[in-house]
Amino acid sequence: MRAALVNSRGRILFNAREPTQRTGSRSDIIDQIVRLVSQCSAHSKRRVSAVGIGFPGPLNAEKGFILSPPNLPALKQTPLKKILAKRLRLPVFIENDANAAALGEYQFGAGKGTHSLVCMTLGTGIGAGIIINGKIWHGASGVAGEAGHMKVIPNGRKCGCGGRGCLEQYASATGLVRTAKDRLRKNRKSLILKLAGDNPAGITALIVCRAARRGDALAIEALENAARILGLAIANILNLLNPQMVVISGGLANAGKYLFQPLRRQVGLQAIPDACRNVKIVKGKLGDHAGVLGAAAVAFARLKIAK
Amino acid sequence: MRAALVNSRGRILFNAREPTQRTGSRSDIIDQIVRLVSQCSAHSKRRVSAVGIGFPGPLNAEKGFILSPPNLPALKQTPLKKILAKRLRLPVFIENDANAAALGEYQFGAGKGTHSLVCMTLGTGIGAGIIINGKIWHGASGVAGEAGHMKVIPNGRKCGCGGRGCLEQYASATGLVRTAKDRLRKNRKSLILKLAGDNPAGITALIVCRAARRGDALAIEALENAARILGLAIANILNLLNPQMVVISGGLANAGKYLFQPLRRQVGLQAIPDACRNVKIVKGKLGDHAGVLGAAAVAFARLKIAK
Repeated sequence: MRAALVNSRGRILFNAREPTQRTGSRSDIIDQIVRLVSQCSAHSKRRVSAVGIGFPGPLNAEKGFILSPPNLPALKQTPLKKILAKRLRLPVFIENDANAAALGEYQFGAGKGTHSLVCMTLGTGIGAGIIINGKIWHGASGVAGEAGHMKVIPNGRKCGCGGRGCLEQYASATGLVRTAKDRLRKNRKSLILKLAGDNPAGITALIVCRAARRGDALAIEALENAARILGLAIANILNLLNPQMVVISGGLANAGKYLFQPLRRQVGLQAIPDACRNVKIVKGKLGDHAGVLGAAAVAFARLKIAK
Repeated sequence: MRAALVNSRGRILFNAREPTQRTGSRSDIIDQIVRLVSQCSAHSKRRVSAVGIGFPGPLNAEKGFILSPPNLPALKQTPLKKILAKRLRLPVFIENDANAAALGEYQFGAGKGTHSLVCMTLGTGIGAGIIINGKIWHGASGVAGEAGHMKVIPNGRKCGCGGRGCLEQYASATGLVRTAKDRLRKNRKSLILKLAGDNPAGITALIVCRAARRGDALAIEALENAARILGLAIANILNLLNPQMVVISGGLANAGKYLFQPLRRQVGLQAIPDACRNVKIVKGKLGDHAGVLGAAAVAFARLKIAK
């Protein structure tokens, strides 16, 4: 769990972090949030104006109500905004993390100066945030941006959502590792296994990226496969939405040219020229700070509306 | 070419039509537009407030500038808005036809009372119009809504856009006819050929729909195939955009249950539950009048902004 004191220009003035108490009770976790926020407040020379929170969904952003987070079951059905506002005596705004990352990049990062962008966060899964006319587009029931569950491969890999062929089964960190393992099983030689200490269970996306940088053919191919499938999904998004920019964020964005080169090539092949010619596909600029800066951007944006 | 005198509640007070002079010069076509508008004006008891035009793209809607219409080359690179405004002495607003249809359904048809919808027009090709917060979303370079070129079948049928596996190769009227012909070639019995006067070149989407209604298995399967592929694309749109409603417009929307039943089933299988549960997938209500009512909706909407 990370917290930061952030000014309105997106500068981080103070940082705090703690391992999330995943097995704790609801009040343990809320105490933890309050503690981190208080540490930040204590370092502020001026009055803190609001608290923004980026939280993995599903949640109701407007009400600040947590629904059923698979990785933090203690917060199931929690009116987090209400509880925290009372404890902290500050305005609290909650947003799902993919939307917060998109707003963070729009406000403080790669998307500064644009008016529309789609930010794809490639982590364990894939989430997207859509900014239209400078605002997060939440959709009719608050679930817009579930790009990770766009179906890209007919009858493809099974997904946790119950469907098959979902984008995140191929182009998330998890998907990349799965592809690498599939290919390793075909008895192919690769640096990957060595970097993972000869233990297939130890293979991570970071290891695949490291192997690619050292020229490992299997790793490069696995990344190319992820990039091609991601490129197809992004081309479809461009044809439909024609945004000004696509920001790639999350751990896999660090794969650099091994991801971006085949990705841009595929988009060029699959998107209609008018949508493709004018779009920038870039790596997010907030990197490790995307979470806290996104949360801060949410707070600043909603404070502005509230005023 | 159709024109209508429409009041602000979307009632058609007068209708006029002429076959478009496709081989005519630029001024022939402009004369034709002026003639039709003048006929409508002559039937109005009140002063006509504006002229709205729905035109097959590509065009610049803001400037009212026609780029390079494949089916009306005489209007290539034409500042149509400027020319018509001068001749008609009225405000003129131009929009691509898929966007106009979406706004028409939003303002006067199936989408009344919603705030976000995607309208898919299934005709010779497939165009979509996206309404977000009550306004057409044009995209960063004015080409949002090219859903017909979303890639749905990897390495699928070739498309006029140069790509492969585009949605409109399967789920437009043209795509449906192609599927029916492919299946007929496999020596299968079907009413379709008989209804087309034993001439495969005479097969139309209307004939396929008619055969389906009479219980023809091949026709029903061809429509199911179109619906399944359309359903996959719509599920991806729901996962990404989470609109309140999807309106199906254009000739193929008349296929009724042969299209909508397999379509809704497929969307239910492929879209995430939260996006799917809350969406209505309905047939457009404007039918044959979608073109003129869409154009009128564009004029009313832009007049309001201009005021």
